[in-house]
Amino acid sequence: MSVSIAYLGPPGTYTEAAALAYATWMAENSDREALLCPCPSIAQTLRSVAQGEAHLAVVPVENSIEGSVAVTLDCLWQLDRLHIQQALVLPVTHTLLSRATDLDKIQTVYSHPQALAQCQGWLEKFLKNIQLVPTNSTTEALQYLDRDLTAGAIASERAAMLYNLPILALAINDYPDNCTRFWVLGKQPSTGGSHTSLAFSVPANVPGALVKPLQIFASREINLNRIESRPTKRSLGEYLFFMDLEADASQASVQAALAELVPYTEVLKIFGSYNVLPINSPLVSKT
Amino acid sequence: MSVSIAYLGPPGTYTEAAALAYATWMAENSDREALLCPCPSIAQTLRSVAQGEAHLAVVPVENSIEGSVAVTLDCLWQLDRLHIQQALVLPVTHTLLSRATDLDKIQTVYSHPQALAQCQGWLEKFLKNIQLVPTNSTTEALQYLDRDLTAGAIASERAAMLYNLPILALAINDYPDNCTRFWVLGKQPSTGGSHTSLAFSVPANVPGALVKPLQIFASREINLNRIESRPTKRSLGEYLFFMDLEADASQASVQAALAELVPYTEVLKIFGSYNVLPINSPLVSKT
Repeated sequence: MSVSIAYLGPPGTYTEAAALAYATWMAENSDREALLCPCPSIAQTLRSVAQGEAHLAVVPVENSIEGSVAVTLDCLWQLDRLHIQQALVLPVTHTLLSRATDLDKIQTVYSHPQALAQCQGWLEKFLKNIQLVPTNSTTEALQYLDRDLTAGAIASERAAMLYNLPILALAINDYPDNCTRFWVLGKQPSTGGSHTSLAFSVPANVPGALVKPLQIFASREINLNRIESRPTKRSLGEYLFFMDLEADASQASVQAALAELVPYTEVLKIFGSYNVLPINSPLVSKT
Repeated sequence: MSVSIAYLGPPGTYTEAAALAYATWMAENSDREALLCPCPSIAQTLRSVAQGEAHLAVVPVENSIEGSVAVTLDCLWQLDRLHIQQALVLPVTHTLLSRATDLDKIQTVYSHPQALAQCQGWLEKFLKNIQLVPTNSTTEALQYLDRDLTAGAIASERAAMLYNLPILALAINDYPDNCTRFWVLGKQPSTGGSHTSLAFSVPANVPGALVKPLQIFASREINLNRIESRPTKRSLGEYLFFMDLEADASQASVQAALAELVPYTEVLKIFGSYNVLPINSPLVSKT
């Protein structure tokens, strides 16, 4: 049986690299083959699974430099029917692609805002006073290179290979340990994994409201990998909190903690328990 | 004496509206006049003050729909010499500007990614299947309208007035209570205000590390308006925490809390105590 996997396309994006790594792992560990389906936005990637048009979605959650991907968290909270099946972390190495013969010729650099931000220092050092133009994906930035010989685009080495574009500079990200965490989401309830993710809104203001949930997990020695606040979109100063626990939701201590948590939250959503995929695909080390 | 105020330009952005509101308040409450200086990015706005090229900077901090402005928090942490002089909250009402005669003619909509995100639902309902193109500011989006009659731009009513552009649709933001909090920053230490902002990094993992700081403030009944995590940029899973307290840092209880906090943090930075400006400028109600 083939499994359709929606991702933020077009081919050549970092999310495609994550989807390919997951597909490779799936092929090696089951008899299922993957069919990759590019989507124009993260919101549409997630909706395609919620609406039954694809089996799974691969979306970026968090980058080590730029932080959380807000649209992923907001959509997950709103859609309400998606469960995290797997997590994977990919190294991100940016390259500058261009048909210009050298750096001095570049006048404009196109890329996704996160990629532009991750290369900010390099751009200020080597391409001072040029124009930076945001695009919807790193791959979308490539369309400008053929028609404009003074244009550059920040994308992956894999994108250069796929679209046969020259690399003008390698590894231009400001921080060498640049990596992105992705989630694989589906409609199937997910249980039995090393990590559990959840989100909740709190009834009143933040102070006491957040102390108690943190205490509930800390007192049981349940490790919290991440906490992230997002606005409720009702009024300024009202937040949701997203948490990643280093524990399986089926453990008795986690079950007890979640039961104790309920009265301190307004709405509580559990996105499932899942494992982090060990990455060893040769594809990934290239992107 | 005139005071130079750097802001994310060009004229017509929501940040300009905030800078104008602050300038109006300053003119009414002191004998100082403001000179507004547009900057091409938030990072450059803040750096111009750190480097002594402008006296003050006005930058967006948080939007009620899209959440924190990451670049503002990251720059504030890195620059290390800026203090918050004042906060102000402005309502944000987006309009669709275009030289097209009606909505059916629109094929592309340009705007800042935050504005596109804040009108996502409206765009999907009334302009299905068009192309959304991100720009560096809402004002930058306006340059496409004269040369392309199928282009639209999301910006403020004030921008339409300034650049003499027709409004095709009014109040297109998905949530009516859309507002943005801005900070006015300068090099002068700021004391004596209703709010105090700080940020700290923690030595180990999150769980116990965040419980203690929250307890320190909660036990003294110091209200926490906001907590926000940002990556340290060292490795995935290491965070800084930004907090807004509803208290003056010179109060004895806050002083005691801050002293108790020090050993639980790796680096602790206090960005000053400041008041929230009451907005009553007629300029602001229009934008």
